[in-house]
Amino acid sequence: MTLQEQLQHKIDLKTKPVGALGTLEQLALQIGLIQDTLTPSLNNPSLLVFAADHGLSDEGVSPYPKDVTWQMVMNFVAGGAAINVFCRQNNINLKVVDAGVDYDFPAGIPVVNAKVAKGSRNMRREPAMTADECRAAIQKGRDLVSTEAAKGCNVIGFGEMGIGNTSASSLLMHRFLNIPIEECIGAGTGSQGEHFAKKTEILKEVSEKYNPQTPEETLAVFGGLEIAMMAGAMLEAADRNMIVLVDGFIASAAALSAVNIQPEARQKMIFCHSSDERGHQMMLDGMRADPVLHLNLRLGEGTGAALAYPLVQAAVNFLNEMASFEDAGVSNKE
Amino acid sequence: MTLQEQLQHKIDLKTKPVGALGTLEQLALQIGLIQDTLTPSLNNPSLLVFAADHGLSDEGVSPYPKDVTWQMVMNFVAGGAAINVFCRQNNINLKVVDAGVDYDFPAGIPVVNAKVAKGSRNMRREPAMTADECRAAIQKGRDLVSTEAAKGCNVIGFGEMGIGNTSASSLLMHRFLNIPIEECIGAGTGSQGEHFAKKTEILKEVSEKYNPQTPEETLAVFGGLEIAMMAGAMLEAADRNMIVLVDGFIASAAALSAVNIQPEARQKMIFCHSSDERGHQMMLDGMRADPVLHLNLRLGEGTGAALAYPLVQAAVNFLNEMASFEDAGVSNKE
Repeated sequence: MTLQEQLQHKIDLKTKPVGALGTLEQLALQIGLIQDTLTPSLNNPSLLVFAADHGLSDEGVSPYPKDVTWQMVMNFVAGGAAINVFCRQNNINLKVVDAGVDYDFPAGIPVVNAKVAKGSRNMRREPAMTADECRAAIQKGRDLVSTEAAKGCNVIGFGEMGIGNTSASSLLMHRFLNIPIEECIGAGTGSQGEHFAKKTEILKEVSEKYNPQTPEETLAVFGGLEIAMMAGAMLEAADRNMIVLVDGFIASAAALSAVNIQPEARQKMIFCHSSDERGHQMMLDGMRADPVLHLNLRLGEGTGAALAYPLVQAAVNFLNEMASFEDAGVSNKE
Repeated sequence: MTLQEQLQHKIDLKTKPVGALGTLEQLALQIGLIQDTLTPSLNNPSLLVFAADHGLSDEGVSPYPKDVTWQMVMNFVAGGAAINVFCRQNNINLKVVDAGVDYDFPAGIPVVNAKVAKGSRNMRREPAMTADECRAAIQKGRDLVSTEAAKGCNVIGFGEMGIGNTSASSLLMHRFLNIPIEECIGAGTGSQGEHFAKKTEILKEVSEKYNPQTPEETLAVFGGLEIAMMAGAMLEAADRNMIVLVDGFIASAAALSAVNIQPEARQKMIFCHSSDERGHQMMLDGMRADPVLHLNLRLGEGTGAALAYPLVQAAVNFLNEMASFEDAGVSNKE
């Protein structure tokens, strides 16, 4: 029997009707395959939040001011954001990474300095990143994951903070999945009415301006520093057979970039939730992903990944701890 | 401001876009209202699993033999069932209750003896319970919850084990919601093809045989001992302003019975998951319930309630622990 068959057999003989644990059974199978074992375990879970600013936010694509990016980083540091609450609850080690915030943080605060630039460039005028900037972001993402792996982490979630980053994600989705840009644009943190129409017009203009050829070029032109760094982090985690917990719309755009660079990365990814952001479901469909949670979240920061973690743990636990029909002396179906 | 307005205001001023925590925001509001406070807390969570046999199982409505009910109770006692795994993981106090299993359990095992009879009666011939049996089951359910409340428990989940109990639940759903019986019948633990056709025929016959008038009579005629005891437990928990965690199809049939007996009980209930059992979504719609999880579970035992618990905790935690825009010095929407 292949490992996949052995895992399926182990799952099917647990004291429950076949398939009765639904999505958790799919997760148990996937995790067993990633770890190449019938008895997987989750060790030292980490979550990295990548923060960066976006040149395009100068064009007013978000209803929030750009300063919110650095202010929210300070909120992460103080422990008052949603992601802090959920990581504390689920014993997930949270690390905040400055991938490219347009602000000089005070020395001594617990923010990892991986700043590539003070924000990406304004795509209305030039590509969001030069090839070198994008490569540097990807490499820094890889290095950060290597550091976590060295500490024994084998399951890692990724989140983000960056005013303007739903716009970059919409553009990446549009290009990688060949979906008309209008269908890829949503409300972000709260764009509505006239503001939404303006956002749509700007993104159409940006989309028509460039014609990148490779996945790396596409990421450089339309991405952002935190998105590129997250894509690099996902690639490294996949290379190391770590379980990758993908959050919502923006993290999925990073995942889509990573999968376009290296398709084998897909099988290491667990898509944690279906976002309320318009277009996310199409992005999930494009990666044949069946997300764990459906809570109408649209916050980012990695919150969906942190909230899904206990269910990922439950999948591992039932596989390891539940009795089989034989062990328990329970009669199986007649 | 009313408490509801104060809670909504507190939720809206947290450092996130308004509504961005989706279902968790609705849970936080509901829990605040149940506990009549802006700072709710979850204390000593418990989960009661009610087990009983069904006279109707003699007619072959389930593909599993009736012995599975007592065998699974022994599996609960040994700690090897799915509900054991998930309660251990989430620090939920699990209690197994014999509401009416057709088996003499050995003395000294940790099963609460609340046996009303050795199984309900065969509905094809007579009502599942006499009025006295149904009343006794409801009262024992109430007493068990009072015991938990005395230990400081303010959030309680309910699960069940009983071969044949999806049939009883389908009949309750049919009667309470006026939905044709054919639309209320699903696969249960694995009924298919010819077996499914036979189950449908038997339930149609049973449905046409009786015409109970009050909710209590309906529960007595079509229910089961574990379902009636669970309904009583839910009523007591609601009376005491405890948070009631409702599991899947069978627990929802108990909830539907409880709500028909006392409509105010509804507002204390959190519907934990949308089951893969056909008809569950219609039952949820009938109670205007928007469930927390969508994992295609169809196991029962309270597993959906135990798995949803960390998300209920997350709702309470964000309400208590997240900073407001003002506290964190973060700019709000322009």
